[in-house]
Amino acid sequence: MMAPWDLYVIITTNLGGGRPTLELVRQALAGGATAIQLREKDLPARELVELGREIRQLTHAAGATFIVNDRLDVALAVEADGVHIGQEDLPARVARELLGPGKILGVSTGTVLEARQAVADGADYLGVGSIYATKSKEDAGEPIGLAGLKAIRAAVTIPLVAIGGINSSNAADVIAAGADGVAVVSAVIGAPDIAAAARELLAAVRRARH
Amino acid sequence: MMAPWDLYVIITTNLGGGRPTLELVRQALAGGATAIQLREKDLPARELVELGREIRQLTHAAGATFIVNDRLDVALAVEADGVHIGQEDLPARVARELLGPGKILGVSTGTVLEARQAVADGADYLGVGSIYATKSKEDAGEPIGLAGLKAIRAAVTIPLVAIGGINSSNAADVIAAGADGVAVVSAVIGAPDIAAAARELLAAVRRARH
Ligand code: NI
Repeated sequence: MMAPWDLYVIITTNLGGGRPTLELVRQALAGGATAIQLREKDLPARELVELGREIRQLTHAAGATFIVNDRLDVALAVEADGVHIGQEDLPARVARELLGPGKILGVSTGTVLEARQAVADGADYLGVGSIYATKSKEDAGEPIGLAGLKAIRAAVTIPLVAIGGINSSNAADVIAAGADGVAVVSAVIGAPDIAAAARELLAAVRRARH
Repeated sequence: MMAPWDLYVIITTNLGGGRPTLELVRQALAGGATAIQLREKDLPARELVELGREIRQLTHAAGATFIVNDRLDVALAVEADGVHIGQEDLPARVARELLGPGKILGVSTGTVLEARQAVADGADYLGVGSIYATKSKEDAGEPIGLAGLKAIRAAVTIPLVAIGGINSSNAADVIAAGADGVAVVSAVIGAPDIAAAARELLAAVRRARH
């Protein structure tokens, strides 16, 4: 799959301005999102599976990668491409074993130590952040800045998806600092025109590589 | 495993009178619990895995069955004997596929229709209830009574674990109505002396069979 991390849009329905989950996904994909993560902390598994199955179809049709946050069982149930885990979720090594080699494992990291550990545990990509201050991710700590991203870039070779306060104005800096792509929540799904916001951000990422 | 369902104790730490999770488990096992279910709705997966690993050791040592509520991934991660799902959790058929044949699948049911469906989906036992009114299980509907239990008993042949308001005074009625065992939360883990409460309930269940 070519450059699946360019624009990684995280779907958390209650940050989507009252629009239904699948509408957020459709619009993000219409704007060129290369990966979609379903990140719902308050939905029962049954509902996650129902949404996940629909998102699986939409992402297949768009050629986008589909990742489920935290619930590895749901990821397997809906045949997502993989699971993304934070430092409070399943231990990465356990997730790797349960997933098998055919699925993608992403791990949230904020330090070089965590990044190295995640790689040792079998991560396929890292979510790195928060780069900038943000309100989207309630469990985000102090921003690590571009310096923190560069340090992780120097320490590991797997793809890095930068997260936290990224928008079309600063995306180029993040790519220049070594990110393979950017992950966003509100910057895309909170925008009045989701597809346009995605398109603008994706363009900024791709321009930054040239 | 002989009669693992006689006394099925559900562990939800905040119903345990401020005592630590593992203390609740130890005392329940000391009192003869034949199965332990870890049912925590608000803990991150990382913590569930840590607790689950300890409970796995304690239940092995006691020869008791260990079931994880809802999180099939955690059940696999800690090598529990199986998973228990409610009507809001993973679809039973999906859970059966993800678990494989070697693990136990339990499904909460309150009607003959749900019970038949759960069996068709691959359940190994059913949680049946609520039998009586209870405050432990916030999502429990109207009690189905002994009549509801009998109707399910007549409809399916797999083991039935009755749940909801069961104590040592009414356990005999529940067994007489066709339950293979009883599941309890507060009646055991909310008791001042957990082991004594478990012992008394287990004795009531076993007497009812003779
Ligand atoms: Ni949950």
